[in-house]
Parts: sequence; structure tokens; C-alpha cells
Amino acid sequence: MGSTSGAAEQAKPAAGDARPARRRLSVDRRREELMAAALELFSRRDAEDVSIDDVASAAGASRALVYHYFGGKQELYVAALKSAAAQLEARLKPHENGRPLDELAGGLTRYFDFVEEHAAGFAALLRGGPANRSGDIGEIVDSVRNRLFILIMKQMRVEEPGPALRITLRSWIASVETAGLDWLEHRDIERPALERMLVDHMVALLGVAARHDPRVGELLDNLLRDQTS
Amino acid sequence: MGSTSGAAEQAKPAAGDARPARRRLSVDRRREELMAAALELFSRRDAEDVSIDDVASAAGASRALVYHYFGGKQELYVAALKSAAAQLEARLKPHENGRPLDELAGGLTRYFDFVEEHAAGFAALLRGGPANRSGDIGEIVDSVRNRLFILIMKQMRVEEPGPALRITLRSWIASVETAGLDWLEHRDIERPALERMLVDHMVALLGVAARHDPRVGELLDNLLRDQTS
Repeated sequence: MGSTSGAAEQAKPAAGDARPARRRLSVDRRREELMAAALELFSRRDAEDVSIDDVASAAGASRALVYHYFGGKQELYVAALKSAAAQLEARLKPHENGRPLDELAGGLTRYFDFVEEHAAGFAALLRGGPANRSGDIGEIVDSVRNRLFILIMKQMRVEEPGPALRITLRSWIASVETAGLDWLEHRDIERPALERMLVDHMVALLGVAARHDPRVGELLDNLLRDQTS
Repeated sequence: MGSTSGAAEQAKPAAGDARPARRRLSVDRRREELMAAALELFSRRDAEDVSIDDVASAAGASRALVYHYFGGKQELYVAALKSAAAQLEARLKPHENGRPLDELAGGLTRYFDFVEEHAAGFAALLRGGPANRSGDIGEIVDSVRNRLFILIMKQMRVEEPGPALRITLRSWIASVETAGLDWLEHRDIERPALERMLVDHMVALLGVAARHDPRVGELLDNLLRDQTS
């Protein structure tokens, strides 16, 4: 998310330039700075403990400006959450175009980086949610889960999953989320060990699903062959 | 949850009895009837689509009486959720005191019975939550998860889980929840097959955890020995 004070400095008006373009840029930037400040705060504290004043002061802006851009705290929280979800998805885009299980492992590392950076916000959101959890928020959470599902299907080169594979992948995603929460709470296992365990979970779960759907067996054979070749 | 009209009939004043005792009984019963009606409605519809009037009319009571007992819709929803959580926990108490994996399988069947009976409410709660999801609600959901965790530990005769086992059990509980949501959404796999798959998941996940913690290996050996003896 970057330093908010740094972002505020960048936005100080520079000399020269035609007026309308500069103003437009500065409006977009101002909004981005406020959002970065909000996301930073929502990542470090429970949403209940973040006020509009906190966001304004972190961004070096007025309370009125925050209201002007976002309407209110709930809207600001939803906007920050959307921005965080977009960041997460961007990070999880496969880097290597390599072997599916390596891609999965790489994606998990980046997922846990994200969890760590947004620790308090991630925990508050998924543990039970802030005091005012609107339908919007549930939808954002669900949409992230769905995109992860689609991403993993793509990594595994699966087009149409049967029920056993679909349930297995969705279950695995839920279990990764839970492992993230558990890790934030306890931190009594090394992250690399945890990440390896979760990749191994996937392989083990696909092994179970293969008993219910032979196509999953073929998929798993391919994944493991890719891995050892 | 039983039929609400049946419950309403039972509560009609019977002849005889000393006044104070009867009135007290009837107050408790009236509250229970309202709660049963509320839970029935919250189980079949999204909370947003249930009004105080709906609850009053389902219980054959006045709107004022519902407000009198529960304060408002949010309080009524929280009370209904607590009641549902208590019902679920009561159902999951092991019946047989038998082999741990059989107990797990039996518990899963009763869990899915519950999911099916409270379909809409379960989905709305865990998919993303109703429009007004207060801290209370998150706490109830978390507390159910924690109790399931303790229950499974007890079934498996584990006292102090290490990190690998703790994460594995919590992940499995999350994946069962997700499988429940998926099943409500798709119903394209037979419930017994799904339940078997989830028991197999547990065994497979414990197998992975055993690579990180030898005590989990011993536990798994015991579970499987109990199973085949």
C-alpha cells in the first residue's frame, strides 16, 4: 500500500502544466491518496477503530474532503475493500506460466504476503466482519473466492469441473483462508512450512476426489507428471 | 424446528393450574413459539426478506408482542441464530461413543441434515451475511466453529494439538462449511457421497499433517486401526 505521507507529498502541485489536465490528475490522485490512507488503516486495525478523522489526518486532508470523495465511512470501507481485492487478484495472476503446482505454490506465497500486509483488516473481515457488514462486503468476499476458483481452474487447465472437483477446489480455498486467519492468530509455524502443507493438502484432496471422478485422477496424474518431469 | 402452527396450538391455555406458575410457563412458551416461528422464517428466506410482521403472523401473535420479547428485528435474528447454533451443537454431540471416524461420519450426516433444514438461513449467513451483520453474529459463527473444533478434538482423543493438527482441523471445518454451501447451491452430488468424501478428506489431510508432526502420524494410525478392528 506504500507510505501515505510519501503519497501526500507526491501530490503537491508541481509548477507549469495546463490547468484542466492538472486538476483532473490531481482529483484522481487525491482520491487515490485517501484510499491508500484508508486501506493502510483498515489493514492495521478493526474497521470499528478507524474514523473518518483518522483517514483524513493520515492523508493530510480534511474530513470534508473524505466525505466529498467517499460519502461516509461504510462507503470508504467498501471502496478500500474493493481496492484490496483488486490488488490481491493482480498479485495472484500466475507469474511463471510454469508447472501448475509450482504456480499454486507461488500464488500461495503471494497470498500470504497479502494476508500479512493487511493482517488486521483480513482477520476482521473474515473472522466475523465489522459491526456494519453490508451486503456489498459479502459480495466482494464471495467474488474474490470465485475469482480464485477460476484462477486455479485455469492453472490446472480444467474447463468444466465435475461436482467432486468443484467442491474440492472451493473447500481448499476456504481452508487456505482459514489457515491465513490461524496463522495471523498463532504464528507458531513457519510460513514456508504452512504454504508447503497447503500445496500438499491440494494434492491429497485431489487424490480423494479422484475416487469419485476418474477425470480428477487424470488431472492429478498430469499435475504430478508435470511436477517431476 | 417443527411446525409453528402446532406450537401455537400447544400454547393455548389449558384449564386448571395455579395462576403464577401458568403465567410464567406461558411467557416462556410464548417466547419459544415466537422464536420457533422466527427461526423457521430465517431458515427459509434471507433475513432481509423476513419482517417482524411475518414473524408475528406466523406465530399468530401481534407485532407488539414480538417487539416486547425481542426488541427489534436485529435482536430477533441474533436470538434465532443463537438458538440454531445451540440446536446444531446438541445434534453434533456424539451418539455412539464409537470409533472416531464413524462418529465423524455420523456427525457429518447430522450437520448436513441441519444445513438442509435451515437452507436459506445457512446460505445467507455464511455466503456473506445479511445486510446488517453485527459483531454478535460474527461471534456466534466463530463460536460454533470453535465448538466443532473442540468436539472433533474430543472425538479423536487429542488434548493439545500442535500447529499442524490445529490448522488441519480448522481447515477441514471450513471446508465442510463450504461443501455445505456448495451442496445447497448445486445439489449435483448425492449427500452420502459428499459426506464420505469429506471423511476421506479428513483422513487425507491428517496424512499430510503427519509429515509435519509425527504425533499426528500416531493419531492417524490409531484412527485407522480403530476403524478396521
